[in-house]
Amino acid sequence: VVKFKMIKVSIIGATGYTGSELLRLLLFHEKVEVVKVTSRSDVEVPVGQIHRNLYKLTNLKFTEEDIEEIVEISDAVFLALPHGQALEKIPAIFQAAKGKPIRVLDLGGDFRLKDTQVFEKYYKLKHTAPEFLKDAVYGLTEFNREGIQKSNLVACPGCFPTGALLALFPLAAENLLTGDVIINSATGSSGSGTDPSEGTHHPERAFDYKAYNVFSHRHQPEIQQELERFNGNPFEVTLTTHSAPMVRGIFTTVFAHLSKEIPESRLKDLYCGYYENEHFIRLVDQPRSAVVAGSNFCDVSVVSRGRKVIINSAIDNLVKGGSGQAVQDMNLMFGLDEKMGLTFPGTHP
Amino acid sequence: VVKFKMIKVSIIGATGYTGSELLRLLLFHEKVEVVKVTSRSDVEVPVGQIHRNLYKLTNLKFTEEDIEEIVEISDAVFLALPHGQALEKIPAIFQAAKGKPIRVLDLGGDFRLKDTQVFEKYYKLKHTAPEFLKDAVYGLTEFNREGIQKSNLVACPGCFPTGALLALFPLAAENLLTGDVIINSATGSSGSGTDPSEGTHHPERAFDYKAYNVFSHRHQPEIQQELERFNGNPFEVTLTTHSAPMVRGIFTTVFAHLSKEIPESRLKDLYCGYYENEHFIRLVDQPRSAVVAGSNFCDVSVVSRGRKVIINSAIDNLVKGGSGQAVQDMNLMFGLDEKMGLTFPGTHP
Amino acid sequence: VVKFKMIKVSIIGATGYTGSELLRLLLFHEKVEVVKVTSRSDVEVPVGQIHRNLYKLTNLKFTEEDIEEIVEISDAVFLALPHGQALEKIPAIFQAAKGKPIRVLDLGGDFRLKDTQVFEKYYKLKHTAPEFLKDAVYGLTEFNREGIQKSNLVACPGCFPTGALLALFPLAAENLLTGDVIINSATGSSGSGTDPSEGTHHPERAFDYKAYNVFSHRHQPEIQQELERFNGNPFEVTLTTHSAPMVRGIFTTVFAHLSKEIPESRLKDLYCGYYENEHFIRLVDQPRSAVVAGSNFCDVSVVSRGRKVIINSAIDNLVKGGSGQAVQDMNLMFGLDEKMGLTFPGTHP
Amino acid sequence: VVKFKMIKVSIIGATGYTGSELLRLLLFHEKVEVVKVTSRSDVEVPVGQIHRNLYKLTNLKFTEEDIEEIVEISDAVFLALPHGQALEKIPAIFQAAKGKPIRVLDLGGDFRLKDTQVFEKYYKLKHTAPEFLKDAVYGLTEFNREGIQKSNLVACPGCFPTGALLALFPLAAENLLTGDVIINSATGSSGSGTDPSEGTHHPERAFDYKAYNVFSHRHQPEIQQELERFNGNPFEVTLTTHSAPMVRGIFTTVFAHLSKEIPESRLKDLYCGYYENEHFIRLVDQPRSAVVAGSNFCDVSVVSRGRKVIINSAIDNLVKGGSGQAVQDMNLMFGLDEKMGLTFPGTHP
Repeated sequence: VVKFKMIKVSIIGATGYTGSELLRLLLFHEKVEVVKVTSRSDVEVPVGQIHRNLYKLTNLKFTEEDIEEIVEISDAVFLALPHGQALEKIPAIFQAAKGKPIRVLDLGGDFRLKDTQVFEKYYKLKHTAPEFLKDAVYGLTEFNREGIQKSNLVACPGCFPTGALLALFPLAAENLLTGDVIINSATGSSGSGTDPSEGTHHPERAFDYKAYNVFSHRHQPEIQQELERFNGNPFEVTLTTHSAPMVRGIFTTVFAHLSKEIPESRLKDLYCGYYENEHFIRLVDQPRSAVVAGSNFCDVSVVSRGRKVIINSAIDNLVKGGSGQAVQDMNLMFGLDEKMGLTFPGTHP
Repeated sequence: VVKFKMIKVSIIGATGYTGSELLRLLLFHEKVEVVKVTSRSDVEVPVGQIHRNLYKLTNLKFTEEDIEEIVEISDAVFLALPHGQALEKIPAIFQAAKGKPIRVLDLGGDFRLKDTQVFEKYYKLKHTAPEFLKDAVYGLTEFNREGIQKSNLVACPGCFPTGALLALFPLAAENLLTGDVIINSATGSSGSGTDPSEGTHHPERAFDYKAYNVFSHRHQPEIQQELERFNGNPFEVTLTTHSAPMVRGIFTTVFAHLSKEIPESRLKDLYCGYYENEHFIRLVDQPRSAVVAGSNFCDVSVVSRGRKVIINSAIDNLVKGGSGQAVQDMNLMFGLDEKMGLTFPGTHP
Repeated sequence: VVKFKMIKVSIIGATGYTGSELLRLLLFHEKVEVVKVTSRSDVEVPVGQIHRNLYKLTNLKFTEEDIEEIVEISDAVFLALPHGQALEKIPAIFQAAKGKPIRVLDLGGDFRLKDTQVFEKYYKLKHTAPEFLKDAVYGLTEFNREGIQKSNLVACPGCFPTGALLALFPLAAENLLTGDVIINSATGSSGSGTDPSEGTHHPERAFDYKAYNVFSHRHQPEIQQELERFNGNPFEVTLTTHSAPMVRGIFTTVFAHLSKEIPESRLKDLYCGYYENEHFIRLVDQPRSAVVAGSNFCDVSVVSRGRKVIINSAIDNLVKGGSGQAVQDMNLMFGLDEKMGLTFPGTHP
Repeated sequence: VVKFKMIKVSIIGATGYTGSELLRLLLFHEKVEVVKVTSRSDVEVPVGQIHRNLYKLTNLKFTEEDIEEIVEISDAVFLALPHGQALEKIPAIFQAAKGKPIRVLDLGGDFRLKDTQVFEKYYKLKHTAPEFLKDAVYGLTEFNREGIQKSNLVACPGCFPTGALLALFPLAAENLLTGDVIINSATGSSGSGTDPSEGTHHPERAFDYKAYNVFSHRHQPEIQQELERFNGNPFEVTLTTHSAPMVRGIFTTVFAHLSKEIPESRLKDLYCGYYENEHFIRLVDQPRSAVVAGSNFCDVSVVSRGRKVIINSAIDNLVKGGSGQAVQDMNLMFGLDEKMGLTFPGTHP
């Protein structure tokens, strides 16, 4: 059987959990053919030997990164790399393309922050490709569809920002944020990637809960930047991230003191207006990380007392907070139904 | 869009985890339309309010059990009920059908054991519908395809038997079992169903490991019976089941002392012969419950020293050990590709 | 061997986790003899049959509640009861005592809130013993030693308040709180008690994270009340509680915007001044629930940016957040070293 | 206060979990003074900085290994080292001692197996100190008290052997074992030590269950050797070890086909005879790893059908299966009550 009009996709850096999850989605996407997956450490190793859940489900092997070849055979390239590496790869990809239309989706943080000074402060890295920042579109699907559709370079959102922004965008869009916006998020261990470390050592992590990167998490300025696109009033985000003893999931609790009082029922209506037609965003009474685990859904609740509001959201960090949203963006970039390949529910329990 | 030739499916008793998992699979099955889901406790409640992962993904509500109506509108009926209830329902279904062809898949234990005395000993229940036992086909797909295809009544295997039988069938088929066949299995908590109890209370279960129903588990005679269909030599199964602090998954370790010595390499070839063309059974070095979680796969390994053999298998108790295998059987019964709606990999990590 | 000068202790309602933990501590306390443990549901059942970890370690059996007898044979009485029940028991105890000196420690919430209107709003119960509120001393040991020593009735703090107050008291004592004080806490499942429920059903809880009782948790007014004893400026506490997939532990993240800017180093000095001589409070870089699990320690960190402060604390909800602190208070009430019976470290990992 | 007659103890290799647990016990042991703890990687680092649960509870720092000095200042030396290292250390210690009485407790595997060929096969190491094997006493306390009391060198049992032997010794002592003795054990992740690896990486381990080292685990010959001391009949142990998603605990399920039939009640009496006076061994209906976690107890059950027996046991691998039993042995070696410092119950839940 010859496949017509399949989107040919390569993944650069496909041995991590983000790569694993991209493969779980793309190998079964009806309009995608995965043509190349690269790795520095596992060249020639079959994919199913690294990602055991994919064993016997693909004949792909990891290959070296040959940018020229990748550009030649691919319609879309996903980058699932440690921070900093896309600063080199993305210029190389577009240079090699020589005008051939190619779509690039970067799942790292290199092209999310528009202000290179902020980038350099939080990432402790010099930004060596600032000329691409202008064209890089922030890939939070629900709030950037038009930009994503037209773009050749999508900077896919961080996991914490996805949960926080979906909780906050309706308020920001109504210019309701002011003063301190307090975000507390808890993440599962898969967010730390595949490299074993003390913080993800099972005897240490299994019953543990702790805060980390207090006042200094890289995702804080990303959230601030994106909210400022909508909310004219001055406000200041404080993000505190926590390690929770689960594997998948980010749960977010936002506290905000609104710029004006709105009755709770109207606030719920406001969220409803933004989200009732969004397939992947569900307004619920009580978001739960276990309920969305394995799926591309983001469950959101909103409660208020006077001008104080608490919004909760739950996502799977590897799906809506990572590879799922990247596929959703890819669908948009290629004119497909954005839900294609993503409609399955969570595997709860 | 009008859907042609869809299989109309009802689920009796759809509020438990087995029902939840059937819905997760059947709502997205390209040839199935779920027409009715019943519940005693939650009549008129929307499915997504009980199974939160399905929220907004179906408009179905739970209804009362009206056997007449179910038979009239359904091509297939799944029963996901506590043990004993199918003893009444299944006669009622076939009586109401009055010869209309209807396929019934029972996920409980009522029609698995051919010997009613054994049934009554282990289930502490009188078997009130022995006339259906003759026609009930045991639904372990890979070892009963022909029977399942022709059957109107499939008794879907128990979760422990699925893991144990897939580990042992190649030996039984070669008449290699003799003497004690020692099966140790560990299950996740989802096997206990949706009703909270002390044994599944999180503070008790979260770090706990224990054996239960020693020498008396209902699944032991089921395994014995099915192996005896193949293995002529006398042998005796001892199944010890354990509660492990995970949610999904059954991991099985079988020890057998073979009736004759076979070199390990030939033993592996033997398993390979049985399984290399089975999509859902994968021979691996080290089966892991986390790798198959969420999927219909059964991973198997075999190791030997002289005549001693250890076989390990890993399944998801709710999928291959429950609802997934039931859907696989349904596919066969309706002449579909048995993989339909089941091809997705596990969601590891 | 006759034991001299042992404190004779009874526990009313000793079958729950709070009772279990009291017994784990008091049975091995060198100055305590546990003389009576009561239960409504398990009269005549040996303690070790309910609390399996204590099997063979005590000959005590649960008995019925005979207040007269308890008062007669006890120097101290612990109440580990559902909310509302102490409203009747405590008046009955003091009435039966007829002036005999007896010390009562209530681990429930009935005598923590001084304002009965606030109590009735949050507990949905009429307060039927307001005359005891005047004498009831709030048992947060480190900030109330003198009161506890003199008291006959100690209202032991709630678990969330213990974590939050130990994080906030140094700021409150310096009148630094103003405006919104945002407290986010995550608790293990043992905080829900011994009764199985959907929220503590292992398949539901094991990978789950969620917020609950948003804006309405009973511990919020308790925290507000205690901080107001120290902090004269107006401020308003918002507590959001979360269920995390662990068993023991409460982790708290406080955000406060101080009434004046204090350099971070001076802020740390301030905490050091309050806590360096406290055995059970340890200033650390990164509190972790797993590190204090099983122990009476509270680990605290403080970080600031300008006037914004984030304080983290970690406790074991059943020890420092419950039975351990109650024993610490009992030690004080009887003139013992407050550390007696509590010096063991956590069982990490 | 001057402490009289304290046992001066050093620990060589004290940064791992075995060392951590020794410190948790010995720092609070009323007759012990820990005088030295060594480490290769963390010289001069305070103990509480590595073992965070001990923060502020000891002023000890890790030092280099100076055998001369250790021997000079110590009455007892614990070795908590990777396999193979004690082969050099123990000869060095006794040489440095020059006849000074010193007691050595080795928690590694170097001196457990009497047959160096078996050692070399399973440990893949040449045994370079066979002359010490004769004097090395196997430290399973309950079955070797006299030997341990007289010994200067105790080889503390492995974690799996402790659980298996306490399950099997009463049968072996009655010469009831024959043929295959099938042992299946599941361990928590703390048994893998402090070094992060793929197998203990939280996203991989948290929901996982798997068998490992099938037919080749080092603890199998250790169990065989010790049972053979009692059981004259030929029999053959097969140990299959499993990784379970918990932190502490080893749960063991033994299947044996006895050399003669004994009624179940007499079998239970037999176990009762061996264990009713053992403080740390408790005969129960259903051993549970969570119930003994944190404690030195071993809970055991025995059930039979005809000549088939299933024995279950549960221990904490770091306590009874490691450091706790070592302290119990040390108590014996110094003529103390063997329970000293070990009487606390588990911290269940």
